[in-house]
Amino acid sequence: MSDVRIDDLPVRDELRGKSPYGAPQLDVPVRLNTNENPYPLPEALVERIAERVREAARGLNRYPDRDAVQLRTELAKYLQRTGRHPLGVENVWAANGSNEVIQQLLQTFGGPGRTAIGFEPSYSMHALIARGTGTGWISGPRNEDFTIDLAAAEKAIAEHRPDVVFITTPNNPTGNAVPPETVLALYEAAQAAKPSMVIVDEAYIEFSHGDSLLPLLAGRPHLVISRTMSKAFGAAGLRLGYLAADPAVVDAVQLVRLPYHLSAITQATALAALEHTDTLLGYVEQLKSERDRLVAELRATGYDVIESDANFVQFGRFADAHEAWRKILDRGVLVRDNGVPGWLRVSAGTPEENDAFLDAVRELKKELEA
Amino acid sequence: MSDVRIDDLPVRDELRGKSPYGAPQLDVPVRLNTNENPYPLPEALVERIAERVREAARGLNRYPDRDAVQLRTELAKYLQRTGRHPLGVENVWAANGSNEVIQQLLQTFGGPGRTAIGFEPSYSMHALIARGTGTGWISGPRNEDFTIDLAAAEKAIAEHRPDVVFITTPNNPTGNAVPPETVLALYEAAQAAKPSMVIVDEAYIEFSHGDSLLPLLAGRPHLVISRTMSKAFGAAGLRLGYLAADPAVVDAVQLVRLPYHLSAITQATALAALEHTDTLLGYVEQLKSERDRLVAELRATGYDVIESDANFVQFGRFADAHEAWRKILDRGVLVRDNGVPGWLRVSAGTPEENDAFLDAVRELKKELEA
Repeated sequence: MSDVRIDDLPVRDELRGKSPYGAPQLDVPVRLNTNENPYPLPEALVERIAERVREAARGLNRYPDRDAVQLRTELAKYLQRTGRHPLGVENVWAANGSNEVIQQLLQTFGGPGRTAIGFEPSYSMHALIARGTGTGWISGPRNEDFTIDLAAAEKAIAEHRPDVVFITTPNNPTGNAVPPETVLALYEAAQAAKPSMVIVDEAYIEFSHGDSLLPLLAGRPHLVISRTMSKAFGAAGLRLGYLAADPAVVDAVQLVRLPYHLSAITQATALAALEHTDTLLGYVEQLKSERDRLVAELRATGYDVIESDANFVQFGRFADAHEAWRKILDRGVLVRDNGVPGWLRVSAGTPEENDAFLDAVRELKKELEA
Repeated sequence: MSDVRIDDLPVRDELRGKSPYGAPQLDVPVRLNTNENPYPLPEALVERIAERVREAARGLNRYPDRDAVQLRTELAKYLQRTGRHPLGVENVWAANGSNEVIQQLLQTFGGPGRTAIGFEPSYSMHALIARGTGTGWISGPRNEDFTIDLAAAEKAIAEHRPDVVFITTPNNPTGNAVPPETVLALYEAAQAAKPSMVIVDEAYIEFSHGDSLLPLLAGRPHLVISRTMSKAFGAAGLRLGYLAADPAVVDAVQLVRLPYHLSAITQATALAALEHTDTLLGYVEQLKSERDRLVAELRATGYDVIESDANFVQFGRFADAHEAWRKILDRGVLVRDNGVPGWLRVSAGTPEENDAFLDAVRELKKELEA
């Protein structure tokens, strides 16, 4: 119908020549590239979702509860129960995926003329959403072992005085958790410099050997903890992210959220999933032990592995990571090349999927050493 | 837990002192304030939604189809069938409500250092989403009868050279459609001035006496038509908006869309609703005749009424519209005060709801004349 290309349109200059974000969606037997939970929802939960959605569909001609009060109340209960910290509906906000939560936070606290810092490599959407919201992006440093270099990070904060500081723990794609004392020190540095908002992205916290940083919220109104139902709740297809913070933060994001952003169907489905929390957290335990097996087996095979607190493992080192990615794909296993030189990331799958992956990387090791 | 207020946080300056957008959600017998479709979905469709969602829930641990190909294909078929214009999946994009569609368009074609114009009063979210994306907002003029003053509009476009031009037809809250020749003239003016993107918001087009402007897309790559399933499809609770445009526009918004923005559950529900298009468009016919009845009865009662091509009617004039709004509310009927001096807006409800509304405004008329 048309031979018009993107660059023929009056798009913003910074979008020219760019490509959309997203992992390749390839049709291969074993897909361990997007940190999905490999366990389908239990059939009882599937039925409960159908039931709650049927009920919601009967009122679908009406706008949804704009404030998602029931859902936020149940999310607060879940956080309070697992996070050892008192929280109510007024502390919790939900949106279509943690990406939208972060977008709302950057529209509120970042935006044109403001900056955000992240310590890279980390979740690359932080930088992309910054760009999408007109927030300047500062790439902060890490040590060679992918831990945060606290002295260098404090120096970067003092120097750039960012409006928003991102800390991802456990970090994606490297898998390591950030010690609470490092988060506290960065929070203090951020307050001394500006004061600025500190967003702790805990998308993978349920898989961690350690605890959530929720208790740090007490007395720290500039701290935000973001979470998701995509991973531990096995609901990547649902797109339900949320945050916990001081009630003033929850009030503030409502100045920028699109009205009725969260559909009645999404609210109903998430509420059904929350009824089955204990079953879903049982799968998390299985995945944690599979993750630990991946770490041990990869090391036994001679790979370097970053200690993981997530449902994925970063391993290497490769002279050419993309070539290694392709050779693993040739063996029917899709892992992720995040562009971290020398390293690849594999999501913990089912025991059978992990066996297939381990066979592939053992063969690869032999080939590389031949 | 905390006495922190929004203004104690480091929010963006332009958010200070603001309140969240949204109509009051009051619990009254007759709610005719948000242009919802008063007819619940038919039970057969409710069951079909439960069925398709059950199937989607079985794969909910996986991310949804990032490109929503099946849904966009079915939306294109619907537009092609009802809009007399050939369209394929490559012409259509979908998001969580037309608000998110517009947000993505402004992130792509507006944003910091750019401007958008709308002719006010019109859908107030255009200006609010402009603010949220850092796009400068220009309030363009209308005639006293709420039609677009073409000469003044062309002058404003030539003078301000906006990057984005919004045209809402039928217009909200006034209800009047914009003649196709006016849209064409504004498109030409916008191309001569910049060139800029022209977004035609057709949220209420299915209720119009006239046709969709989809055929104007041919040969006009800077034209975008935005639509929604909230009104004609009776699915305000679903949050499904979409656009039709040149394929390059669809490619461009993918540079700013959050990855996996549209949940598997939303895609499944929307696909179910599209299977029942003919039934739902039958309700639209009923609403159109109820809308025409409201116009006639309001006029017979002595009110001024703007000719309506939507599922709502703007009526007046009141010395104090907000006081009139309150007096109607006192009679158990919630209508909308959009802040247009002298006027109120009522959504077409069921025949019973409309009777209750007409009784209330007849009483009000007597009271005002007493």
